[in-house]
Amino acid sequence: MTSSFKSAPADKSELEEGSELTPRFDANGLVTAVVVDSGDNEVLMLAHMNEEALRLTIETGLAHYWSRSRNKLWKKGETSGNMQTVDEIRVDCDQDAVLLKVRVSGADATCHTGRRSCFYRKVVETDGQTRLEIGSEPLFDPGSVYTDDQAN
Amino acid sequence: MTSSFKSAPADKSELEEGSELTPRFDANGLVTAVVVDSGDNEVLMLAHMNEEALRLTIETGLAHYWSRSRNKLWKKGETSGNMQTVDEIRVDCDQDAVLLKVRVSGADATCHTGRRSCFYRKVVETDGQTRLEIGSEPLFDPGSVYTDDQAN
Repeated sequence: MTSSFKSAPADKSELEEGSELTPRFDANGLVTAVVVDSGDNEVLMLAHMNEEALRLTIETGLAHYWSRSRNKLWKKGETSGNMQTVDEIRVDCDQDAVLLKVRVSGADATCHTGRRSCFYRKVVETDGQTRLEIGSEPLFDPGSVYTDDQAN
Repeated sequence: MTSSFKSAPADKSELEEGSELTPRFDANGLVTAVVVDSGDNEVLMLAHMNEEALRLTIETGLAHYWSRSRNKLWKKGETSGNMQTVDEIRVDCDQDAVLLKVRVSGADATCHTGRRSCFYRKVVETDGQTRLEIGSEPLFDPGSVYTDDQAN
């Protein structure tokens, strides 16, 4: 396993323009991860990574996260089969967020509701009211895949 | 101005499958916003919104955020001219994140470093070392646009 990441430099220009990966984990030890499909850039999910999850993702090429609800390391798709093979990892300017470009195995569904993306509802205005409209249907039946505490 | 958003329902299925926008603001009163270009889905930035920022974004069609570093409401592009016109807003399954599809005005640059996207560095392996490689150059000169506390 690679050694721990170095601490973020105090110098802003080094942090933003440098070639050293120095993730700025927050007070809970997490960075935010945006996950998109390598093929069409569709945003699939938003998740969080602690240091171990980020290291494992870099080392294995499979996306790992930290589950805040289950409070444990989470190898995406371990239960559902919808694993994520990582084609590219990017980091943002101040290094507190990463972007993963992935290919999804299994049913090509990333959301625990069975849909391709977690962002399946659009905000619409109907008769002056703000409502949500569902734009996509489940690709698998979550009830037949997960027990209650397993949705991944 | 629209009235405040309703509280999130206790029922998980209503939260995930319902048509009511009930954003789940965190302990700091924020949801995370992923911002992509409407044209090609390129991820431009990650930001945060408090209730006011989300309401203003829906009402005006221009992206507003909450700046955690400056601790104030932030109309994106007000200083730089790189404003974001919102074509679509989506919400994720558990309603603690939103996805904005936008068109960027001005220099078509979203990052305060002058680049199109904040995610301009790629994680690469060179001689067994993990490094960052810069993949895009600034589209404007931040030094000529911002004072130190204004980068937006």
